[in-house]
Amino acid sequence: MSKTEARLKELGITLPVPAAPVANYVPFTRSGNIVQISGQLSNDGNGRIKGTLGVDVTLEEGVEAARLAGINLLAQMKAAAGGDLDKVVRVLKLNAFVQAGPDFYDIPQVINGCSDLMVEVLGDAGKHARSAVGMYKIPLGFAVEIDATIEVAD
Amino acid sequence: MSKTEARLKELGITLPVPAAPVANYVPFTRSGNIVQISGQLSNDGNGRIKGTLGVDVTLEEGVEAARLAGINLLAQMKAAAGGDLDKVVRVLKLNAFVQAGPDFYDIPQVINGCSDLMVEVLGDAGKHARSAVGMYKIPLGFAVEIDATIEVAD
Amino acid sequence: MSKTEARLKELGITLPVPAAPVANYVPFTRSGNIVQISGQLSNDGNGRIKGTLGVDVTLEEGVEAARLAGINLLAQMKAAAGGDLDKVVRVLKLNAFVQAGPDFYDIPQVINGCSDLMVEVLGDAGKHARSAVGMYKIPLGFAVEIDATIEVAD
Repeated sequence: MSKTEARLKELGITLPVPAAPVANYVPFTRSGNIVQISGQLSNDGNGRIKGTLGVDVTLEEGVEAARLAGINLLAQMKAAAGGDLDKVVRVLKLNAFVQAGPDFYDIPQVINGCSDLMVEVLGDAGKHARSAVGMYKIPLGFAVEIDATIEVAD
Repeated sequence: MSKTEARLKELGITLPVPAAPVANYVPFTRSGNIVQISGQLSNDGNGRIKGTLGVDVTLEEGVEAARLAGINLLAQMKAAAGGDLDKVVRVLKLNAFVQAGPDFYDIPQVINGCSDLMVEVLGDAGKHARSAVGMYKIPLGFAVEIDATIEVAD
Repeated sequence: MSKTEARLKELGITLPVPAAPVANYVPFTRSGNIVQISGQLSNDGNGRIKGTLGVDVTLEEGVEAARLAGINLLAQMKAAAGGDLDKVVRVLKLNAFVQAGPDFYDIPQVINGCSDLMVEVLGDAGKHARSAVGMYKIPLGFAVEIDATIEVAD
């Protein structure tokens, strides 16, 4: 078992089968050692977590939503790295989108649900640059969407 | 005539003169073989398609708007590839922004207007990763804005 | 004194100490010669400029906010380039987010506050591709957030 798989087990995280895109695009592309991963939703496979922060989603649920998007990112990273997450050299950048209500500004705290997960699972390789913004609408009404650029080993 | 130009002709698509930026920036930059293209609006050169999905723009018009942004991206890709679209090795990533009203969540379907175009015109090289989100406001009130990262041949 | 530092002095700009991230992420990552910088807020260190364009922030203040985000980007670029801004080969891309009210569409004019600064300070190396969009919410209520991808010399 790879180091990262062992860590996932320790954390009690089971990666889902990577979600197939719902349209004419692909989950990730690669150029050299750089992989770009499509936006992943806060989708647990059973239609949640949907809703709007500050309206019908609490901060705590938002953090869970960002973690869920992160788990979906890890599943795509694993596929992109040929099945071995130890080949993730670095998470370079996350672009993070929170569906936010009229009075909700605690966007960084929500996205920490994903940022913390990256470091928990990947250690120093999980330390990323990021942008986090509050969206008016996220596809299908999900609470969080996050995409990633990563570097993988040969 | 290049393979891709022939394909554009077959599809009845005429690429516009690439739009000049309206400010102190450039339409694209290149580093090595990676080209980053500035956000392209759903602008047909005559001031359309503007408006908000779910308010004064229908889903069908939204799809057309995304296709229009895609045509503008192709015009920039051609310029970035020294006039020869056959040199586009891969569309690596699209960042897609839809101006969305209070009850509009069908963002992926709108952006398919661009995603489908990429694959129609460029084939496998057009298969991209993407993020699609619903914006509160897009510059000048256009319905769709999309930027791209691509890989070009030497 | 480096050429760029001299230019900053000429412009009367003092770069702040680069802001530390407020969460489990880093200000920038590097892969090869490409550096990705986390979203920088329109933060002068004293809690401004916050607010919404077209509501409680004027266009002029918005331009200043974008310039402020740009100054924070330059501070991070300097750190990423080992303290020497002359090593910035090119600003490749800016992703620019404006907190916009219900009737505000002059997003490009706001972001020009950052675009103009890049060219004033870095000359041709500051000419970038960009996307600019109007957000519903920006973290902590700041008026502008901008991230950057740059190329640095070895």
